[in-house]
Amino acid sequence: MSDSTGDLADRGEERIGWSRSRMALLGEVRERLAAEQPFAGRTIGVALHTEPKTAVLLETLAAGGARIIGTGNHGSTQDDVVAALGRRGITIFGRRDDTLDDHMRDLGRTLDAHPDVLLDNGADLALMALERGQAGELIGGTEETTSGGFRLREHESGGVPFPVIVINDSPLKAIAENRHAVGQSTVESFLRITNLSVIGKRVVVVGYGWVGRGVAQYLRSFGAKVAVVEADELKAFDAAFEGFRVAPLADLAGWAQVVLTATGRPGAVPIEAVERMEAGTVLGNVGHFPWEIDVAGLRDRATSVVDVSPGLERLDLPGGTHVVLVTGGRMFNLGGENPKGNSIESMDIGFLLQALSLERVVTRADSLVPGPQRVPDDIERHIARRVLAVMGAER
Amino acid sequence: MSDSTGDLADRGEERIGWSRSRMALLGEVRERLAAEQPFAGRTIGVALHTEPKTAVLLETLAAGGARIIGTGNHGSTQDDVVAALGRRGITIFGRRDDTLDDHMRDLGRTLDAHPDVLLDNGADLALMALERGQAGELIGGTEETTSGGFRLREHESGGVPFPVIVINDSPLKAIAENRHAVGQSTVESFLRITNLSVIGKRVVVVGYGWVGRGVAQYLRSFGAKVAVVEADELKAFDAAFEGFRVAPLADLAGWAQVVLTATGRPGAVPIEAVERMEAGTVLGNVGHFPWEIDVAGLRDRATSVVDVSPGLERLDLPGGTHVVLVTGGRMFNLGGENPKGNSIESMDIGFLLQALSLERVVTRADSLVPGPQRVPDDIERHIARRVLAVMGAER
Amino acid sequence: MSDSTGDLADRGEERIGWSRSRMALLGEVRERLAAEQPFAGRTIGVALHTEPKTAVLLETLAAGGARIIGTGNHGSTQDDVVAALGRRGITIFGRRDDTLDDHMRDLGRTLDAHPDVLLDNGADLALMALERGQAGELIGGTEETTSGGFRLREHESGGVPFPVIVINDSPLKAIAENRHAVGQSTVESFLRITNLSVIGKRVVVVGYGWVGRGVAQYLRSFGAKVAVVEADELKAFDAAFEGFRVAPLADLAGWAQVVLTATGRPGAVPIEAVERMEAGTVLGNVGHFPWEIDVAGLRDRATSVVDVSPGLERLDLPGGTHVVLVTGGRMFNLGGENPKGNSIESMDIGFLLQALSLERVVTRADSLVPGPQRVPDDIERHIARRVLAVMGAER
Amino acid sequence: MSDSTGDLADRGEERIGWSRSRMALLGEVRERLAAEQPFAGRTIGVALHTEPKTAVLLETLAAGGARIIGTGNHGSTQDDVVAALGRRGITIFGRRDDTLDDHMRDLGRTLDAHPDVLLDNGADLALMALERGQAGELIGGTEETTSGGFRLREHESGGVPFPVIVINDSPLKAIAENRHAVGQSTVESFLRITNLSVIGKRVVVVGYGWVGRGVAQYLRSFGAKVAVVEADELKAFDAAFEGFRVAPLADLAGWAQVVLTATGRPGAVPIEAVERMEAGTVLGNVGHFPWEIDVAGLRDRATSVVDVSPGLERLDLPGGTHVVLVTGGRMFNLGGENPKGNSIESMDIGFLLQALSLERVVTRADSLVPGPQRVPDDIERHIARRVLAVMGAER
Repeated sequence: MSDSTGDLADRGEERIGWSRSRMALLGEVRERLAAEQPFAGRTIGVALHTEPKTAVLLETLAAGGARIIGTGNHGSTQDDVVAALGRRGITIFGRRDDTLDDHMRDLGRTLDAHPDVLLDNGADLALMALERGQAGELIGGTEETTSGGFRLREHESGGVPFPVIVINDSPLKAIAENRHAVGQSTVESFLRITNLSVIGKRVVVVGYGWVGRGVAQYLRSFGAKVAVVEADELKAFDAAFEGFRVAPLADLAGWAQVVLTATGRPGAVPIEAVERMEAGTVLGNVGHFPWEIDVAGLRDRATSVVDVSPGLERLDLPGGTHVVLVTGGRMFNLGGENPKGNSIESMDIGFLLQALSLERVVTRADSLVPGPQRVPDDIERHIARRVLAVMGAER
Repeated sequence: MSDSTGDLADRGEERIGWSRSRMALLGEVRERLAAEQPFAGRTIGVALHTEPKTAVLLETLAAGGARIIGTGNHGSTQDDVVAALGRRGITIFGRRDDTLDDHMRDLGRTLDAHPDVLLDNGADLALMALERGQAGELIGGTEETTSGGFRLREHESGGVPFPVIVINDSPLKAIAENRHAVGQSTVESFLRITNLSVIGKRVVVVGYGWVGRGVAQYLRSFGAKVAVVEADELKAFDAAFEGFRVAPLADLAGWAQVVLTATGRPGAVPIEAVERMEAGTVLGNVGHFPWEIDVAGLRDRATSVVDVSPGLERLDLPGGTHVVLVTGGRMFNLGGENPKGNSIESMDIGFLLQALSLERVVTRADSLVPGPQRVPDDIERHIARRVLAVMGAER
Repeated sequence: MSDSTGDLADRGEERIGWSRSRMALLGEVRERLAAEQPFAGRTIGVALHTEPKTAVLLETLAAGGARIIGTGNHGSTQDDVVAALGRRGITIFGRRDDTLDDHMRDLGRTLDAHPDVLLDNGADLALMALERGQAGELIGGTEETTSGGFRLREHESGGVPFPVIVINDSPLKAIAENRHAVGQSTVESFLRITNLSVIGKRVVVVGYGWVGRGVAQYLRSFGAKVAVVEADELKAFDAAFEGFRVAPLADLAGWAQVVLTATGRPGAVPIEAVERMEAGTVLGNVGHFPWEIDVAGLRDRATSVVDVSPGLERLDLPGGTHVVLVTGGRMFNLGGENPKGNSIESMDIGFLLQALSLERVVTRADSLVPGPQRVPDDIERHIARRVLAVMGAER
Repeated sequence: MSDSTGDLADRGEERIGWSRSRMALLGEVRERLAAEQPFAGRTIGVALHTEPKTAVLLETLAAGGARIIGTGNHGSTQDDVVAALGRRGITIFGRRDDTLDDHMRDLGRTLDAHPDVLLDNGADLALMALERGQAGELIGGTEETTSGGFRLREHESGGVPFPVIVINDSPLKAIAENRHAVGQSTVESFLRITNLSVIGKRVVVVGYGWVGRGVAQYLRSFGAKVAVVEADELKAFDAAFEGFRVAPLADLAGWAQVVLTATGRPGAVPIEAVERMEAGTVLGNVGHFPWEIDVAGLRDRATSVVDVSPGLERLDLPGGTHVVLVTGGRMFNLGGENPKGNSIESMDIGFLLQALSLERVVTRADSLVPGPQRVPDDIERHIARRVLAVMGAER
């Protein structure tokens, strides 16, 4: 190992160390897994955004006896973390600069290792395994995203023959991560990227699901005047009783100084709405997919597009108005310089859901049905009790 | 009609008038029902707490062509409202001073009128009709309470052969009434009955369902330090992420200055917990039933019980401590002098659910299944839209 | 003493007892005053609204050796409390049904007793004493109101020769009572008197002083959309940074569903503003004086005035609109049925300011200057420390 | 000019441009100053942290006719901004890598230019001018900091003969910047630097001045359980009525998970308190000076000090516990990677105070007294009105 790789791994270790020191739930379970070795003899194939917090999950599984081999998400892999993991025999193929072809090849290399279990993201590994005829080798797995669950449910050829526990459908994750952690990191990111004040700002939040509720709540707690756009009548009713103004986007576009969208749906902020906005309105997306604001349409229409600050572009529109687009319409709270993402504690909960669900797959696959399914209720309740204890909620 | 009855009716009219002027949703639908007469030729048998807001519901149904005959709740009927309703041919049998025997007789008199439809409360009328063999005469009905729904589901002899729409299971009612209106009227009632400050008070809320959430939220917004007791792990987790301290009642009893219970379950505040409380702790119940605090046990144990103010008793306990019991452990936000109950607007929503559900029963009973069931989804969504419009949420 | 007077006194005792049991600060000081007898041989002449909480103050002063003689406010004296005080030799002349002439005569009778010290309200006793040439008999006194302090400062004939400590200028009172207690009792009174919901209501608060800040804050915490009217630029700036919409009343009148005024100034809500309001706007005054809404002008203009509920009048205005006036424009949070006023704990603070200021007057008059002045700083700080201890703020 | 200097200046221009586009108040006044040229023929000597927002202030003064020459703060000067300013003839001597000797020399070079007016920071220029005998050349100036004002008041040799307007004593600045902007950037910085959640965290805020109030308020709004330490009884009373637990640091140290200090005083968090803290407690300073936490004492005592993440150090203490120190005890909300400091809008207010105060000095020095003094009241009120208009608070 050359010196510079050693340095890289050292830096990765340091950063993983801070996260590990604050992931008390994974710490607890790591000790038990190390003693019980439920993953002994098993290979877990992994597709997961690789950064310090996920590294703590992977080392926890390895402590339980698993051989781990896999790849990061395309374009977000942190090389120092990969180097640090490599030191203890956890193989992650991807690098930050990989092309999409590289990434697809690495998914294949992951399956070449003939995993028994998948820790999947967007169903990339599971669908490729089905295609390659490797389903019979698999005991089961977990899937991080709701949309991965959808892809598996829509799989045409006779369904998925092994159990896949969908982590993102967990109520614990909805509360801790989607609502509160994303709500707070959105406010943090707004301040960090734009350096603007939210006090007294007229902000429109499009979508009042788990994420939208949190974004609206925490912006209001920082003094913004928040209005909500929500097509579902029952959610809109809920928003009104929380004291939010509720109206269609068309009515609010001209009132807004900031518009944030969190609907999960393409085209939630169409060009027609943007054209009604006042000059200087700030436009951002908090949803997972970069399709909520019609960015392509806006760029087409714009008479000029100028970078005005890292993560901020000014788009001049015909008629003389302009909007400021945050992080190109990609996920707001992971954008700009030095994003940290959701809090360590919120990821500790999400990753404990992962670890205990994978343990359930390898130790009691017979208790699970084939195909995508929710986290078993007893795991949810066990984790809720542990979180309450670890948060020190009792003081 | 004697002069004094006329005066009584006049007073009832005035009070009904203020509620009517603020029940915009029922006002809208009354016009339509008057034009369409869906209840023409129908008799609605009613069992419902009789006060100004319910009177507006009954006159709305009468405007739609219904003959209405029924009784109030035992012990809470307001005679001036009965007199005012009598003037326009709406017959309510009960009086405030009725004995329980009187009340049972009035339920029978209601069924003697051979209603086609029931507007029921606690399933009193429906179960009596089944017993009397009148089920065949009934098209269906509504039931105000969740516990009435339970009684119907548990009915042994072969189920309930007609549809009963259970109003209290509505998400709109859960949000508008159970959470927000009761949460706010609990704070109002605490101030009105005790004249104590909530600022800085250490308050324990037992139960984090719809009602408990609202009570905890609004007490905190008035400066109380609120801790939550909740046996369900997932609800407890939710409370912790809203920033509440969460712990068992045994741990919190000695910390509390005020304990409010809203679990719906008997014995939620047992004597053992009360004995741990500091001298002067205020004890109240927000749940529907007076069984959450073990009042009988407390009175047995007490060395003295003294009225200290309207709605407040001091119970001295062996060992030298004492607690202050609010409204004898009966429903807090309807107790003390001059209680108004939930807001007119929240009842407007609940009663529009009643009116449209009853209309559905008489016009499209075929679209409903026999037995207790939820409010049809299209009615919920229609009402949500109307509430948003009437609240003026768009401004 | 006749039986019925005995009953009246018993009822007064019970009500005083509840307040006394929750006025921990006065309880502490009562013990010390009883031991030290600083008021021995002194007569305190009193003019003060007579109800259970003030009774606890008067009995505390009596315990310190004072002879007490005086009168209540005109029209608000509670006869049962007077009877209970009479039993222990505290003489209050007034009765609830007194005419203004009766009241003026009772002020005179109070001075006929040749008090050494005054516990005054609105400077009624002090100015009459100056007029009657009794100033030389007086060591000094306290004054409950800021406006009483103004009257003394404006006294023409050479100033006031004895020290008068003005209680209402205390920062502790401003925080505990004017801001928080009045803010909360205003929300309580709105719910109690109108039975309307505040959730989502568009409320305009006129005046952003201590009282207005509290009213705006607590209404917002109950879900109202609150806008503020404030002529002073610096206070308006403060309101804007608390996230409130700030605008002139003329601009907000048509937007409001509720208008509450708390400026202390006459004519804060003129007829021109009322005429811009939507039909059904609710209008109330939280300030001390009934002059903020131009009620006389409104009644003149109205085509009809109807009582719609206790404490609520409907005034129909030319052009077809109408407003709902709460408690005739008199102090909102003391109006309607069964008002309790500010919390017992907040009055405990205000009355400890009274007790310790009166003690300072009789024991160290030489440390005070002649004329109206603030509560000595050491008393403020002593009380702040005691409040923190008694609130149990440390837990 | 070399290419690389040109690139540097271009980058500076871009960053200044974003701030300028959001500093509406300075924008307004720049137009007027450009027309009226009040600074024509004047040289302003500047000592001010040089970054994009201050650049907008300097270019505004230059537009008003001023010749500007000066230096940044030691160690924080941003070279790209200096380069961009240089292009339009604004001379800032400092560079980021300057030694303290360099900085002192640059202060001297600033005075060598014989300024008529000072825009000073910490009274560095004013005191040096007095020492050098240049006082007679000076019309007056402004001083950014309260502590600079103190230094001037304590100046021994006969006081300061020219007027100095102290900007930081402005109530507008206290509200907009000290309370709200710092409160919010502290929460932002906590999330950005530590990546920890604040929900349910037990946080102690030491000091309840303008800054402490904001920090406590905004942390609570993000779900933290906040307790306050405050020696001044009246401020502590205020905190208790805002619903905060109030106690001495000695009592809270063992309860805390996070301790933030904002007192302005040295040694606010002594070693004895740190030794009572639980393992892992996070420790940070929000005050202007790095002396509130006894960092030197802690480092002496520590058995090891390890960097655990950018801006975070772990200090192991004898006895086996450890604390995590944020940004070495230096100002929290300017630390870590990519700090943006306070919001652009809040600085727009502070810099308008600067611009209008400097204008007052050059146009109406006769209306000012010699020595340090507050911003003239008419300037405060004028700015308050402009802020309300520009914030669009009226919608």
